[in-house]
Amino acid sequence: MRFVLGIDIGGTNLVVGSVSEDGSILHAMQSEPTHAETGATAVLDRLVALAERVIAQTRREIPGASIVGVGIGAPGPLDTKSGIVLLTPNLGWVNMPLRQIIRDRLGLPAMLDNDANCAVLGEWWVGAARGARHAIGITIGTGIGGGLVLDGKLYHGASDVAGEIGHATIDTEGRRCKCGNYGCLEAYASGPAIATRAREVLVREETASLLPSMVDGKLELITAETVYKAAQRGDAVASEIVRDTARYLGVGIANLLNILNADVVVVAGGVTAAGDALFVPLRAEVRRRAFRPAVDATRIVPGALPGTAGVVGAVATFKMQHLGGL
Amino acid sequence: MRFVLGIDIGGTNLVVGSVSEDGSILHAMQSEPTHAETGATAVLDRLVALAERVIAQTRREIPGASIVGVGIGAPGPLDTKSGIVLLTPNLGWVNMPLRQIIRDRLGLPAMLDNDANCAVLGEWWVGAARGARHAIGITIGTGIGGGLVLDGKLYHGASDVAGEIGHATIDTEGRRCKCGNYGCLEAYASGPAIATRAREVLVREETASLLPSMVDGKLELITAETVYKAAQRGDAVASEIVRDTARYLGVGIANLLNILNADVVVVAGGVTAAGDALFVPLRAEVRRRAFRPAVDATRIVPGALPGTAGVVGAVATFKMQHLGGL
Repeated sequence: MRFVLGIDIGGTNLVVGSVSEDGSILHAMQSEPTHAETGATAVLDRLVALAERVIAQTRREIPGASIVGVGIGAPGPLDTKSGIVLLTPNLGWVNMPLRQIIRDRLGLPAMLDNDANCAVLGEWWVGAARGARHAIGITIGTGIGGGLVLDGKLYHGASDVAGEIGHATIDTEGRRCKCGNYGCLEAYASGPAIATRAREVLVREETASLLPSMVDGKLELITAETVYKAAQRGDAVASEIVRDTARYLGVGIANLLNILNADVVVVAGGVTAAGDALFVPLRAEVRRRAFRPAVDATRIVPGALPGTAGVVGAVATFKMQHLGGL
Repeated sequence: MRFVLGIDIGGTNLVVGSVSEDGSILHAMQSEPTHAETGATAVLDRLVALAERVIAQTRREIPGASIVGVGIGAPGPLDTKSGIVLLTPNLGWVNMPLRQIIRDRLGLPAMLDNDANCAVLGEWWVGAARGARHAIGITIGTGIGGGLVLDGKLYHGASDVAGEIGHATIDTEGRRCKCGNYGCLEAYASGPAIATRAREVLVREETASLLPSMVDGKLELITAETVYKAAQRGDAVASEIVRDTARYLGVGIANLLNILNADVVVVAGGVTAAGDALFVPLRAEVRRRAFRPAVDATRIVPGALPGTAGVVGAVATFKMQHLGGL
């Protein structure tokens, strides 16, 4: 039985697993903290050791399993053709020939793409976007990443930076974003932005809320997760923050639909924990803002591979690049 | 010598011409007012008569010329597969089987696409986007239309409405747009929006400007063209309006580049008459807002086929759909 190793490199965790070539089995998934502060060499050493453990476990537990290659998802920007990670602020890597390093150290053919592209490819292969001709993937975490499958192929653009959905402006004179621009979607709807907006309301308004008590009065400890939990418990302030988040995401997704007229939009990441409290107002905002034929043609759904889209998608990118299809 | 007839149906004018199959010769271009108020039957009768005159002139003036088909560009939304114009507010047409009508009445194979798609296809075939792998076309007139050539093919999306660039939100709480939404690019940078913003400044501020004298004090007569002309004569109010227009277009184009990472953006329509006064601040705004690798990979240029992109693009769409390529 043929397996492909999937490697998902994040600023917080390194995740590795084996996926059967047909996508039906994800085996021996393991992860450990990235600890980027230990430096690139140490991170790569631990990553290779982790990969070797997963390979060994797969061979041990699935008799006859062969590992035919490795797909790697890493934060961008990167150059898929040369397999070089150009710059990753979270990891401190510059011009890292990651594909070649992994290939040489594991002795397996390797392919690389950015994490957001891997995520949408994974959802398209075996998840929520399966069967779609045009799929948009949006991953919401510390930032907002995106990937596009158009006409049944991952769309990279002219220089591998297509899909930067988080940095589309939704308010010309709006909030300052980490990227230096103003009014980016990410400045409103990323995890940290959600927490910031909650803190702003609590500081500005004398309003009863569960939120302060959930962090022992230390507002700086509020995270997006705190907000979702409070909203689930019926907290009015938190519910309002979730509804606003849905509206901002709705604006960004309506823009994408007016431009790309996709069959499906997959929203992934921690924010989907808010469930219908997020998706119901989000879809309503999209209906208000996008053209009717674009709205009617699309589904807006949560990701079906929470926690595994990165690894599965890295395997999918190996299959697309090395084996020519999924 | 083989020619294809190109038909460009607009709310204001009907334009028809013959284009040699290789795109090098545009012959016998003729136009006349649409007069939509006379009704669909009358408009179609005059369109067919116009097309027959162009065919006759081409055969007469170019010995041995044969007309092998006809491409039609019309306002959308429309269904390219069935060749039906679903709805055109400016013409009052609903579910008009335009492709079949033209085919039957001219006795030639016919293909149909929307005007914005034809425009970008024309620029990509023989104009400012020639040779690009990923091209974005933006046409600014009464509205703002757009078309996308991605991976060397016109991109239609799931239900033929891709490329509605004018209705991407650039300001969540912004100006009301004719489409019912708020903050669409079109509500800021279309021809009528430019004129409206100029009028607003003149009414609001006691400021010296050439604009009132150019319309005999009748501010309602100000058009986008009045504004470009005043800006060219150094008028401060008009220059500010043009700079603001450039900024709004810059926001919209930066969003497109962050999402699509195109090789070229072709801006066409009357607004390009403003020349460098528009393009210099527009490119500066894009540099401020879009990711560096996306900015570095692209050119932002005026259309190279003013007045003819519609006809040439209609021929290009015939070639793509009927002959399988350009």
